[in-house]
Amino acid sequence: MSKKIPVGILGATGMVGQMYLSLLADHPWFEAAYLAASPRSAGKKYRDVMAGRWRLEGGWGPAGDLLVEDANDVSKAAAANKEGRCAFVFSALEMEKDEIRTLEEKYAAAGIPVVSNASAHRWTADVPMLIAEVNPHHADIIPAQRKSRGWDKGFIVVKPNCSIQSYTTPLWALLQRGYEIKRLLVTTMQAVSGAGYPGVPSWDMIDNLVPYIGGEEEKSEQEPLKIFGTIKDGLFVNAPEPAVSAHCNRVPVSDGHTACVSLEFGVKKPSIEEVKQIWTTFSALPQKEQFPMAPPRPIIVREENDRPQPRKDRNAGKAMAVSVGRIRPCNVFDLRFVGLSHNTARGAAGGGILNAELLKFKGYL
Amino acid sequence: MSKKIPVGILGATGMVGQMYLSLLADHPWFEAAYLAASPRSAGKKYRDVMAGRWRLEGGWGPAGDLLVEDANDVSKAAAANKEGRCAFVFSALEMEKDEIRTLEEKYAAAGIPVVSNASAHRWTADVPMLIAEVNPHHADIIPAQRKSRGWDKGFIVVKPNCSIQSYTTPLWALLQRGYEIKRLLVTTMQAVSGAGYPGVPSWDMIDNLVPYIGGEEEKSEQEPLKIFGTIKDGLFVNAPEPAVSAHCNRVPVSDGHTACVSLEFGVKKPSIEEVKQIWTTFSALPQKEQFPMAPPRPIIVREENDRPQPRKDRNAGKAMAVSVGRIRPCNVFDLRFVGLSHNTARGAAGGGILNAELLKFKGYL
Amino acid sequence: MSKKIPVGILGATGMVGQMYLSLLADHPWFEAAYLAASPRSAGKKYRDVMAGRWRLEGGWGPAGDLLVEDANDVSKAAAANKEGRCAFVFSALEMEKDEIRTLEEKYAAAGIPVVSNASAHRWTADVPMLIAEVNPHHADIIPAQRKSRGWDKGFIVVKPNCSIQSYTTPLWALLQRGYEIKRLLVTTMQAVSGAGYPGVPSWDMIDNLVPYIGGEEEKSEQEPLKIFGTIKDGLFVNAPEPAVSAHCNRVPVSDGHTACVSLEFGVKKPSIEEVKQIWTTFSALPQKEQFPMAPPRPIIVREENDRPQPRKDRNAGKAMAVSVGRIRPCNVFDLRFVGLSHNTARGAAGGGILNAELLKFKGYL
Amino acid sequence: MSKKIPVGILGATGMVGQMYLSLLADHPWFEAAYLAASPRSAGKKYRDVMAGRWRLEGGWGPAGDLLVEDANDVSKAAAANKEGRCAFVFSALEMEKDEIRTLEEKYAAAGIPVVSNASAHRWTADVPMLIAEVNPHHADIIPAQRKSRGWDKGFIVVKPNCSIQSYTTPLWALLQRGYEIKRLLVTTMQAVSGAGYPGVPSWDMIDNLVPYIGGEEEKSEQEPLKIFGTIKDGLFVNAPEPAVSAHCNRVPVSDGHTACVSLEFGVKKPSIEEVKQIWTTFSALPQKEQFPMAPPRPIIVREENDRPQPRKDRNAGKAMAVSVGRIRPCNVFDLRFVGLSHNTARGAAGGGILNAELLKFKGYL
Repeated sequence: MSKKIPVGILGATGMVGQMYLSLLADHPWFEAAYLAASPRSAGKKYRDVMAGRWRLEGGWGPAGDLLVEDANDVSKAAAANKEGRCAFVFSALEMEKDEIRTLEEKYAAAGIPVVSNASAHRWTADVPMLIAEVNPHHADIIPAQRKSRGWDKGFIVVKPNCSIQSYTTPLWALLQRGYEIKRLLVTTMQAVSGAGYPGVPSWDMIDNLVPYIGGEEEKSEQEPLKIFGTIKDGLFVNAPEPAVSAHCNRVPVSDGHTACVSLEFGVKKPSIEEVKQIWTTFSALPQKEQFPMAPPRPIIVREENDRPQPRKDRNAGKAMAVSVGRIRPCNVFDLRFVGLSHNTARGAAGGGILNAELLKFKGYL
Repeated sequence: MSKKIPVGILGATGMVGQMYLSLLADHPWFEAAYLAASPRSAGKKYRDVMAGRWRLEGGWGPAGDLLVEDANDVSKAAAANKEGRCAFVFSALEMEKDEIRTLEEKYAAAGIPVVSNASAHRWTADVPMLIAEVNPHHADIIPAQRKSRGWDKGFIVVKPNCSIQSYTTPLWALLQRGYEIKRLLVTTMQAVSGAGYPGVPSWDMIDNLVPYIGGEEEKSEQEPLKIFGTIKDGLFVNAPEPAVSAHCNRVPVSDGHTACVSLEFGVKKPSIEEVKQIWTTFSALPQKEQFPMAPPRPIIVREENDRPQPRKDRNAGKAMAVSVGRIRPCNVFDLRFVGLSHNTARGAAGGGILNAELLKFKGYL
Repeated sequence: MSKKIPVGILGATGMVGQMYLSLLADHPWFEAAYLAASPRSAGKKYRDVMAGRWRLEGGWGPAGDLLVEDANDVSKAAAANKEGRCAFVFSALEMEKDEIRTLEEKYAAAGIPVVSNASAHRWTADVPMLIAEVNPHHADIIPAQRKSRGWDKGFIVVKPNCSIQSYTTPLWALLQRGYEIKRLLVTTMQAVSGAGYPGVPSWDMIDNLVPYIGGEEEKSEQEPLKIFGTIKDGLFVNAPEPAVSAHCNRVPVSDGHTACVSLEFGVKKPSIEEVKQIWTTFSALPQKEQFPMAPPRPIIVREENDRPQPRKDRNAGKAMAVSVGRIRPCNVFDLRFVGLSHNTARGAAGGGILNAELLKFKGYL
Repeated sequence: MSKKIPVGILGATGMVGQMYLSLLADHPWFEAAYLAASPRSAGKKYRDVMAGRWRLEGGWGPAGDLLVEDANDVSKAAAANKEGRCAFVFSALEMEKDEIRTLEEKYAAAGIPVVSNASAHRWTADVPMLIAEVNPHHADIIPAQRKSRGWDKGFIVVKPNCSIQSYTTPLWALLQRGYEIKRLLVTTMQAVSGAGYPGVPSWDMIDNLVPYIGGEEEKSEQEPLKIFGTIKDGLFVNAPEPAVSAHCNRVPVSDGHTACVSLEFGVKKPSIEEVKQIWTTFSALPQKEQFPMAPPRPIIVREENDRPQPRKDRNAGKAMAVSVGRIRPCNVFDLRFVGLSHNTARGAAGGGILNAELLKFKGYL
């Protein structure tokens, strides 16, 4: 007799899918009610499919007895939608990009809103790439998207790559206060969970690091421009700056991406103290409306010399806050800092749920 | 009946001291003949002092039966020098900076050349900070140093910090070909052996990294300017550029510092292919003269996407080469690359021995 | 206007002291009200002393504004005790064993009960070594201890070493059901937090393990015999068995000790299914009385092939449960299994708090 | 104009195959001359196949220009054998056990001796499972094997699992001196390279260990009995003892398996000093005949409390020695010790090459 909104999870057996179930286990608004995965898992109970495959410390909550459906079979989800068992879906699909793009569109066309973690639609011009504290207004492209696509109730929103979460919100807080950011150099040290499971072989992560993650630098350089962009004629137009150069590294950390950032402001430059004050006091719609998944403070400023650190700070603010530290002048540009966020919580499933909370608040779900 | 030059090691029991003994175990020119450490080790055989304290995979060679002397007692070294048992010393002292500075000067005043790993004299204006492939000509300040100090045979040379070894030689190779480097942004991921022993607690290096190393960023930003500098009136004058901004991180790697570098050239800019060609063909005095410790190729260019990596590449070129990879254009500056070198071999004891080989070749030892 | 019992923490700045504060931050019965540490921390606010020294993910709760006292100055604690600010103390002292032994006795003599984590009094014949689920009846030696010592209100209880927590409760559950255990071979793989901070150097824990922990094997072999022992004439008498042989290893894990156990029963031998059933259903006084720190199930049986694992299972049951798995026959003895518990929660501060809850329940606090 | 014996490597692209090439790069007797792998690598040069797939620090030596053949196509190898390009093969095949068994027999039937690392034929009754220092006499079953199989020049020998190498030779040294070993309890902590590449996901090896390796305990318990067994009527008969119970764990170490061993002697029991003396002085045929791959001392006794350790001791004796330490009485049985060996050198490719050296010495190659 639950009053919670029933949601579906596409790709429920993968790492991000597991994280969705773990985080939804006691969510006050949503409950996992429809699970879909690859055909070979279809037709079995989730608990049976996951025997020996569940990788997380937390459990899957009440979803163990749900039947797993074939994610390719949209008609099943459409039926569940009609029966009130699947109001919308979180997409954590792991397929070829083209397949995901097509499949997510089929769900939307079938009347099922898609809140996606996949990268497939990040550069689709009428699909918003949302960080709830940064560009919640981008969600308002949804009516235009529906109209041009001929979709009635369905729509697609995505979230950006996990690698940029540890500095995009701090950048936004500065932009919002009128400080232009011209150029940005960022070096990330990213956790292995970002590669899914089995992901990175331990042979490569013992007494070692790998200075390369396929496709990650390109995403890091382009995605902020869409997030900071504007809507024109129902399509997104990129912000013209900042120019971003990214070095992405894989390091032997389980969860938590760390970024070393140097940036150049425009003519107007804040003092270090002002930067700290802006970040410490930053608050946005999710905080104001107290969305369940929202961290009380989206940006946590650490004053210690040696923080943030992945194991000690990734869980700050229910694993949804960005921790920043070592805020200091840059010898070459204007400002240097270190940012850290939890890549599978804030950077994946948690960020997806927060986006859904935003969409519900705005009346789209 | 050895014809090798007998050398002393100050700080013979520490990590760098151990590395010196390990690398000298079968050196064709030098042999460890005088060992000094703290007073509490003095008077005992090295093998007895080191029971349970030797930390390296390789052994200490024939030095186990040497008596350890008190490093503060310069008269012992002076006597050994007169008796032909200590032609010069490698200084790997671990004391307060001021104490090291004074003590190294006492050794030099007593007629004993000091080839130092310590940072104490790096900014002394008449002391050269040598990388044998980069600024061997800086050694030629020694006559002026001796004269102004009133030292007869003694002198002091130092080597730079381990953190800059993975990119300074590549930068030099470009400078030497006429490409000015205006600005440099570098993020390092440094091995724990750089902090000595016991050094970094394992509590901080399991599933974690620390985005801070005390003093390391300042050294990284200033030392290249002296190394690329010139001699005027018997004193070093810093190069005016590049401006360097460094982010230094400690990561769970035993040996091998990795650096992600973005740099801006002056008006004249090489192509990526030209950079690779310059680095691949770079060779300097140590190679030409085939110094025993010199790597055949000082810079090894890796073409794979995901190299260099610490565990797999730190031992390249007898652990004395710099491995570079991911050579590509930078979105913000001109050039990006990843550099890697072995911090306790190339970056400490090995670099010190190579400096001594250079000094012998030039007739100062 | 709190009604909670005010408690003191001796050694409040060390790793175990920090863990006490973290776990007491929202404890329903106790609150940290008196903090003591070494003389050099004395006289300062806890938050000031701990700047840059706090090592845990969780915070120190409301204790940040407390003044730190000198742990050697028992008169300060006695005064606090009289003023109702220190009903008893948790001892997490880090000193020489003899000093701790004497100091804990001074606190007891001053009327302050001591619930200790230190090993100093583990083999004092009238001091109980408590695991709340195993030998809660041992607490009843307290009246005899007080009488023979001439202590009015004070007393001393201790807890065993962290290394035996992952199998002692399972052994007890079998003993309690009438199965004698004759011999036990155990190999532990222990987390670095067991060595405190800075503890084990990261140099020794990267791509490595150390097959030795000083004193740990002796403790592992002897402590179970006292825990399983009896009281006679106000003194503890060891159980005659099991004979234990322990191999203790340090492995690169932050928290969570794992033990591989092979054991030999007496004539009566349970089946594997019976062992599982005994462990799954095991419950003791802390569960029956629902002590705040008690795990709902003290022993969690995992059926997966590859569990328990430290990172995934150490936090089971609020980090207070023992997880066991791989329950199977032994080729040489009768039974093999793997046990795991959180060494600084269950094995240190959490175990200490649970002991205090037991003592309060029994009316000694 | 080489006079070296040309050898083939089946499975040349896998981890063990790579190790074979690395170790053969400057072997005085053998040279890699024929490479075979899966059909999809066939027809290409080894260097092209391996671009981005070579995982080792050392290089592949002169084999880069060899064409890779299809390992399933025995006729190619038979032709090479006739042309003098493949006198015998090392088998490091990675297929289903049944496929390997059949395929190795085809090579033997085609006249090509097979020195195998695979487990497929370990329990074939006429196939010797060789450790060159332990049971070199088992090679003398080859004539009977050839005869019963109807093979002219071909034959099959195998080596045991890597997990038992760190204690089997020490056990043999004791057996050989007349000390019966009745029972053995062993807990291993095994490196990730034992699982091949990609092998164990880093997600499972960061701040963690896994107390299970499929099939490893069974192998550890049975293989020593064949190795210590005898030949009767052309077939192997297992030794009746020791009874072995094994706990096998995967730990975050790149290379080097560590074993904690407790054992029970028969009536006659050596003293600890005698055990050390037996192991220190142990020498066997490979040492006497100075086989190229043989370590000078097969067993290295460490007297330090905390050795052997994987990173520091795995390369002892050219990575072919077993290092033992912590030799002490056992509380439950008679003797306890820690053994360590390099699992992909001694335990895989190095052990295979040493077996081939033995076979050449005995005239079978």
